[in-house]
Amino acid sequence: MTDAARHQPEPLFKKLCLVGLGLIGSSIARAARASNAVRKIAAWDASPQVLARVRELGIADDASGDLKRALQGADLVILCVPVGSMGAVAKSCAPFLERGAILSDVGSVKGSVVAQVARHVPAGVHFVPAHPLAGTEYSGPDSGFATLFQNRWCLLTPTPDTDAGMVEELAEFWKRLGAKVEATTPEHHDLALAVTSHLPHLIAFNIVGTAAHLETVTQSEVIKFSASGFRDFTRIAASDPTMWRDVFLHNKDAVLDMLGRFNADLTSLQRMIERDDGQGLFDLFTRTRAIRKGVVEQGQDTAAPDFGRASGGKLGGV
Amino acid sequence: MTDAARHQPEPLFKKLCLVGLGLIGSSIARAARASNAVRKIAAWDASPQVLARVRELGIADDASGDLKRALQGADLVILCVPVGSMGAVAKSCAPFLERGAILSDVGSVKGSVVAQVARHVPAGVHFVPAHPLAGTEYSGPDSGFATLFQNRWCLLTPTPDTDAGMVEELAEFWKRLGAKVEATTPEHHDLALAVTSHLPHLIAFNIVGTAAHLETVTQSEVIKFSASGFRDFTRIAASDPTMWRDVFLHNKDAVLDMLGRFNADLTSLQRMIERDDGQGLFDLFTRTRAIRKGVVEQGQDTAAPDFGRASGGKLGGV
Repeated sequence: MTDAARHQPEPLFKKLCLVGLGLIGSSIARAARASNAVRKIAAWDASPQVLARVRELGIADDASGDLKRALQGADLVILCVPVGSMGAVAKSCAPFLERGAILSDVGSVKGSVVAQVARHVPAGVHFVPAHPLAGTEYSGPDSGFATLFQNRWCLLTPTPDTDAGMVEELAEFWKRLGAKVEATTPEHHDLALAVTSHLPHLIAFNIVGTAAHLETVTQSEVIKFSASGFRDFTRIAASDPTMWRDVFLHNKDAVLDMLGRFNADLTSLQRMIERDDGQGLFDLFTRTRAIRKGVVEQGQDTAAPDFGRASGGKLGGV
Repeated sequence: MTDAARHQPEPLFKKLCLVGLGLIGSSIARAARASNAVRKIAAWDASPQVLARVRELGIADDASGDLKRALQGADLVILCVPVGSMGAVAKSCAPFLERGAILSDVGSVKGSVVAQVARHVPAGVHFVPAHPLAGTEYSGPDSGFATLFQNRWCLLTPTPDTDAGMVEELAEFWKRLGAKVEATTPEHHDLALAVTSHLPHLIAFNIVGTAAHLETVTQSEVIKFSASGFRDFTRIAASDPTMWRDVFLHNKDAVLDMLGRFNADLTSLQRMIERDDGQGLFDLFTRTRAIRKGVVEQGQDTAAPDFGRASGGKLGGV
């Protein structure tokens, strides 16, 4: 037992089974071990390459590729696969889920995940959907790290018939990993995330796409001069293509609703520019500046200029 | 003389006069002194508060508020004011500019600045428009720092009759401050920056504005859950309102052109979602991911996940 583990509280679960070991699954494995949240960690992934890497990294106690064995004795099972695969993966797990276990997930869309997964949950298994609002632009088991969930929100979206005690147990798990936990409905989650996450990603994917196929400005110029604003969008637009394809297809209504509002606002902003409405522009930009202040004050971003990139004056070793 | 100055090459100019001491002007003052690029620095600003602060910070040798005195003997004069004020400021400086001096600027739009300033340049003064592609979301003399221009591009947009030797002297100045220098036409500059800087800012201001006035999701929720993507846009949307109002009004044609392309692409992306075109989404997101790779490989952004914010697991001391 390490010094750190000796001073940590008792594990909350006997055995955690992670299904899917990408950025999020592998971060949960690392964070759960670092915080002594569980006694044992089993890992399963559809990709033999990912499982082999998980064994090399040593971030799970068992990564055999045998789903039955991975789920055996697991009192906490977390599905960490793209939203579009949740139903199929839940169906595969169903025969091996043990009575009394909590089945959870990390999907970025909750209405669709509930619809896909709930039907496969065996009697006596407690389904508590969850979504940790954390991630980076990288994918795969190598990209995970133990502090990913520190000071980040994890939203739980239990259905009215979910056992409250089980919701509490899962909340404790996420708090142990460093997250702040809140419960809401799947519907409200999907609306809130449509504006705070899905629309921003959609816009970023779009603007990077636009910049990539201009005739008047070359792609090499776009990259060269990207530090003047564009580069911030390229980070978000580098996020996992499969994950994001699924998010947009599975939260279609809320995303299209928010996109409609964005478009209406953009048309009005366009008219301000066309009409030389300097006061209108100034007022909008003053309001948006105030929102940033709120984000920083509430600890949701660093106050360092340029995300702290600029202060060192060096990037990427160049 | 400090140790650093002793090992530095000789100053390139006798006296630099900075007109406008905001983020950029005050960063030039700091960088010019740190790199021994000039012998003396004079500062002038329309705001007595800014000048008082410049004196407190000690970043200029002279900040008296007397424009004639500030320009006297200056062989390099750089206008660091919002694009909309360039003409008026150039006109005020004109009577005091000395024969042989280089007059430059840092405006984010070059066609408009050339049109505003050129008419006021006295015979024997060399006007060399410039734009360092650097900045942060903060404003004012306190926000500047000496390394702001390190490894960043500075674009010079001389007119066909600008003295080539003077362009070279200004290029040497910016290189001394750590920048990489390239020359282009004002027209091409304005198109390239419309896509790499102006459109990204416009989109960021817009999305932050959209999120701020929803009925279904509260502003406090938007801030709370902003780490899931939205917060990246809030940084850009916190940029100086006056500066950006002027940029959009003075680069109207190129900005509206790029906005039109962005809108067309967004409509096609919206249709992909409506039609469940998963392959189309996946292909676009794969292409945009590749662009990020180029940005990082060319040293224009950090490769650290989440701009390096996430790895420490702590933000803003929370």
